[in-house]
This record gives sequence, C-alpha cells and structure tokens, in this order.
Amino acid sequence: MEVLFESESVMKAFRNVATLSMTACAAMLAACQATQAGDPLPSWNAGASKSAIVDFVNRVTDESSPDYRPADDRVAVFDNDGTLWAERPFYFQLAYALDRVRAMAPEHPEWRSQDALRAVMEDDQAAMAGFGLPQLMEIVAATHSGMTTDEFHAAAREWQESALHPRFNRRYTELTYVPMVELLQYLRDNGFQTWIVSGGGIEFLRVFAEEAYGIPPQQVVGSSTQAEYRSDPSAPVIVKRPELGSVDDKAVKPVNINLHIGRRPILAFGNSDGDFEMLEYTTTGDGARLGLILHHDDAEREYAYDRESHIGRLVRGLDEAEERGWILVSMERDFRTVF
Amino acid sequence: MEVLFESESVMKAFRNVATLSMTACAAMLAACQATQAGDPLPSWNAGASKSAIVDFVNRVTDESSPDYRPADDRVAVFDNDGTLWAERPFYFQLAYALDRVRAMAPEHPEWRSQDALRAVMEDDQAAMAGFGLPQLMEIVAATHSGMTTDEFHAAAREWQESALHPRFNRRYTELTYVPMVELLQYLRDNGFQTWIVSGGGIEFLRVFAEEAYGIPPQQVVGSSTQAEYRSDPSAPVIVKRPELGSVDDKAVKPVNINLHIGRRPILAFGNSDGDFEMLEYTTTGDGARLGLILHHDDAEREYAYDRESHIGRLVRGLDEAEERGWILVSMERDFRTVF
Repeated sequence: MEVLFESESVMKAFRNVATLSMTACAAMLAACQATQAGDPLPSWNAGASKSAIVDFVNRVTDESSPDYRPADDRVAVFDNDGTLWAERPFYFQLAYALDRVRAMAPEHPEWRSQDALRAVMEDDQAAMAGFGLPQLMEIVAATHSGMTTDEFHAAAREWQESALHPRFNRRYTELTYVPMVELLQYLRDNGFQTWIVSGGGIEFLRVFAEEAYGIPPQQVVGSSTQAEYRSDPSAPVIVKRPELGSVDDKAVKPVNINLHIGRRPILAFGNSDGDFEMLEYTTTGDGARLGLILHHDDAEREYAYDRESHIGRLVRGLDEAEERGWILVSMERDFRTVF
Repeated sequence: MEVLFESESVMKAFRNVATLSMTACAAMLAACQATQAGDPLPSWNAGASKSAIVDFVNRVTDESSPDYRPADDRVAVFDNDGTLWAERPFYFQLAYALDRVRAMAPEHPEWRSQDALRAVMEDDQAAMAGFGLPQLMEIVAATHSGMTTDEFHAAAREWQESALHPRFNRRYTELTYVPMVELLQYLRDNGFQTWIVSGGGIEFLRVFAEEAYGIPPQQVVGSSTQAEYRSDPSAPVIVKRPELGSVDDKAVKPVNINLHIGRRPILAFGNSDGDFEMLEYTTTGDGARLGLILHHDDAEREYAYDRESHIGRLVRGLDEAEERGWILVSMERDFRTVF
C-alpha cells in the first residue's frame, strides 16, 4: 500500500514536472519567437492593452505623426508598490519597518503610547492588517531616523537581500513584474525618461531601483523624512530626522512631480486610487497622453484585489477609467508571465 | 576752439573704436585658434584654474586612470547667482519680485506691516541694499503665490525677456558668463550630468535654465514655496502657496542634493559662503573630487566683491580654500571673456 502510494505519488510528481516543463518550454519558445519577430513586449499577451501601449509609443516617436513629441517631453511616471512589484500581503517597506520595530522595541518602552508601534510590538494582526500609509509613516519616523543616509542605505540593502516574501518565498527584488520591467526598457529604448513616483520612501526605493528597474536615483521620487546636514571638514553627513518631509501619495504625487521633474509627464502607470491624481494630471495636458492602471485580478499567479482592499484600494480608477480613456491592464489577461 | 575740440574728440573716439576692434579681433582670433587646436575651454585663459579643471576631467574619464569614474558618478553641481550669471547689484529674481511688489501694492495695504514689503513700497534704498535671502523669501511668499505654476512661468518669462540690467543695459539672460556656459558644455561632452543648485526659486530658474545653460528642468534644484494640486477632470493645476517649502542655501544645499540627485556630486562650483556646505559635501567623499569658487575680482568687466558684500559674501571660502584644496577662480585672470 505504502509502496503503491509512493509509486503513484512519484508518477504524479513526474507528470506534473513534465507538464510544467512543457508549459515553461512553450512560454519560452513563444517569447523567443515574439522577440525574433521584433515584438518589443514579448512578456505581454496580444490584446487591447498591449496595442494601446505600442500604438502610443509609435505615435509620439514618429516625426510624421501629429502626436509626435520631442524626446524631452517623453516623461513616463510609474507607481512602485503594486505597479512594478508585489504589494500584498503588505508593502515590503512596511515589512522592513516592522522588523526594525521588533528589533529596536526593547530600548523604546515609550513606543507603547503610540497606537501603530504598540500594535507591532504586541503582534496585533487585526490592527496591522488595517495599516495604511499614515501608520507606515508613523513607524517610519520611529525606525528610519537618527541615522545617516549612508547607514540607512546599508541597513536597507542588507535586509532587502535576505528578507523573503511569505507566499512566494523569494526576495522582493525577485518579485518585480517581468512585463513592467520590459515596458520600462521599451520606453527608454524609445527616448523616454522613466521615473518612479511612489508612496514608498525615496531612500528605500533608491537602494534597489537601479538594479531592479534600470532607474537611477535622480529619477526616483518618493516619501521622505526631513534631513539635516552635519558639517565636518573630513566626513560630513546627512542625517535623517524623525519629522516627515513629504508623503508622496494621492494629490501630493503631482506636486512632487512638478518639484522633481518640472514637466508634466505624458504617460502614467499606477494601480490604486493613490495614483488617481497622478494619472489625472498626466492625462489632461495637451497632445497625446496615456494613462494605465494595473488591475490585480490574478489570484492564481499573484493576487486579486481592488475595491475592498486595505492596500492598493482601487475604486475611482475602476469607475472612471473608461470615461477618462485610461487603460485597465488585466494581470490575468495581459501578462504572459508575472515574475 | 569748439571745432578743434570736436575734432580731437572724434579722433579720440575713432582711436578708441579702432583699438577696441583690434582687441576684439585678437580675442576672437585667439578663441578661434584655441578651438581649432582642440582647446575645450577657449574662453578660459591658460593658468592654474583651467589646468585643474581639464586635468580633473581627463583623470575621471580615462579608464586607465586610478581616478576614473563611470559616467553615472559624474555629477557636477553649480550655484547660479554669481556663479553662472551676474548677481550684482542685486539678485535678478529680487528685481523681479520688487517689480511685482510695486505692481501689486495698491491692492495690498496690509503689506505695510511687513518690514521688507514696506521698504520696497517706500523705495527705502538703504533697507533694500541690505536684503538677503530671508527678505527675498518674504517678498517671494507675498508675490509668487496664489497662482498656478503655468501662470507663474508665463509672467516670469515675459519679465525676463524685457527687464534690463541697470549697469550693462542688457537682459539678464545675456549676462551669463561665457566661460561658465562653455564649462557646462565641456562637462556634458565628457559624460557629466550638470545640475543647478541655487538659492533662487526653482520655478524662476527653470524658465531660462534650458535655453541659457542647456540644463533641463529636472536638473534644476532651488528654493521653493509649497504647492497644492487642484483636481479637475479636464484641467487640473498646481497652485503655488505662500508658505515656504525649502530655502535652498547653505546647509540645505547638500540636503536638497541628496533629495533630488541621490548621489554625492564629484564637482561643485560656487561663489559665496552660501555654497560652502555644498562644496564641503562634494569634496569630502571617496575618490577624485573638485571644488571651485568664482572670485569676483574684476571691477572693470563685472564687479569686485567678497568679504564685505551683502550679496555673495565670501569669507570662509577665501580663508579655507587652500587647506581644502578648492580652486579659487579669478574672474580677472582666468576669464578671457566675461559675457
């Protein structure tokens, strides 16, 4: 009985592996053929989303098109969490901050008087499940300050290289969406500047954005704490302070786009209502413009969530995408591969 | 007697014109020959300053040099007022703000209770001669807010295209220093990113920086007011608020460099103690670095000022340049041409 069971088990596992291998082979073959045929986005399935992107890029780069834009105008902005990489079950930076709270808690009994910090210290899962950006920023202020920017980068890098996603058991930097990384490269190949405009911390994002997305530090915009310069003839430093600088979410995104970029983008890609104003600002100027929203509708390969989600809530984007001419990208339908 | 006088006058004028023409010819010829000989900085006289710049650029771009830096690291930051264009007898943006105060004053009797605004309304020259950045920012808050960024750009552009410098009787955008514009281009030709990091207003600078210096809006860092996004499905705008955002001077310059650029520059060029921390921050990292200070010692062609000046005061820079290895660039000695 046991032997039979094992044999059946082994056979089943073998069939599964064989099926998986054939599926993987077919996918690779398709991607390979697409690339050979000059498809710039082989990880995207054919369909309305892919066509809209390729058509837009063709129009703004074709000098004979009425929609042509010189390269300087080709500014594309991307949200990060839930747009370029996974944001469920929680923001990766929140996971980092929670780990820091736990590590630093013994030295900070005064944190018990702050709701968000106490919830983490007591491992209050119900409270933590409801955390949004305000709670994140409270925790960030407590755990991300009082150190130099260099020290912060070193600590964040060490953690990013080791921490694993609870479901996929992979490092977060391996949970970037392949079709999105491909899209960033495709846009740059067509003379676009690609920028991240994220609610995440600007210093945290810069640790991995260049390697993960090919986006250099000066093209990363995010939330920030205030900072101060400490003069020293041989080794001056910039120290992160606990006071918040900018919470780069919702209506603050266009303000920070203006501050950092100084031009209205012509393409914006987000996934939640935190990106609504960025999409509105981007798609209402003169000339050809493109707004895109990644809809998380793929519970099997990633997650399915929108209106009811605490993280990445998408209501206005779903309700208004059509009338505003924004493309609702379906992860299930449009992404040939996810990670 | 009168006839003789007139003849002598005419002869003298003729001689002056002839001498000037020959001088101008000689200068042009020298510049032309220098360019033909491959001199990348023909508007700079040979000397220690020019040699230090060319030597530095050669070292950081030569892959076989121990000082070699990949292009991503080649970030150069420049102050604007007094470094890239004239700042005497007053900051150009202050002149703009003063004109705005005078134009708007009849509608704002309440301004009489604010010292700086009252001084302008009463044309109190003594008080205005002492204006520095704090007074400028008070005036900016009163006159640069309550309008959209697009409206501000249009007003500033119109003014910049018409207002003339009181001594040189030329538009300010014609009072950029030729050797500095040449240096910016030389650096870009060698793979550097060139950035402005100025105490001037970021929106004001962006109106002319691209045309005057070849520096695009996203590489301009400056002082700012706060701003807010006003949503509108067809025409959302960003409105400048009266509250100050950042006063980009002294120790704030390195903080804003970190916020906008996210990398420590390897070359910094300033002219006053407002640039001291930017130079210190830039020149104390690892590897080859270059700090430069433009010394205004040319009363004939421009102005001569340093320790005693209200605008562009330079004390620490003069005292500490040598021990810190910073190059004191002499406008009189090092600039072949000024404007």
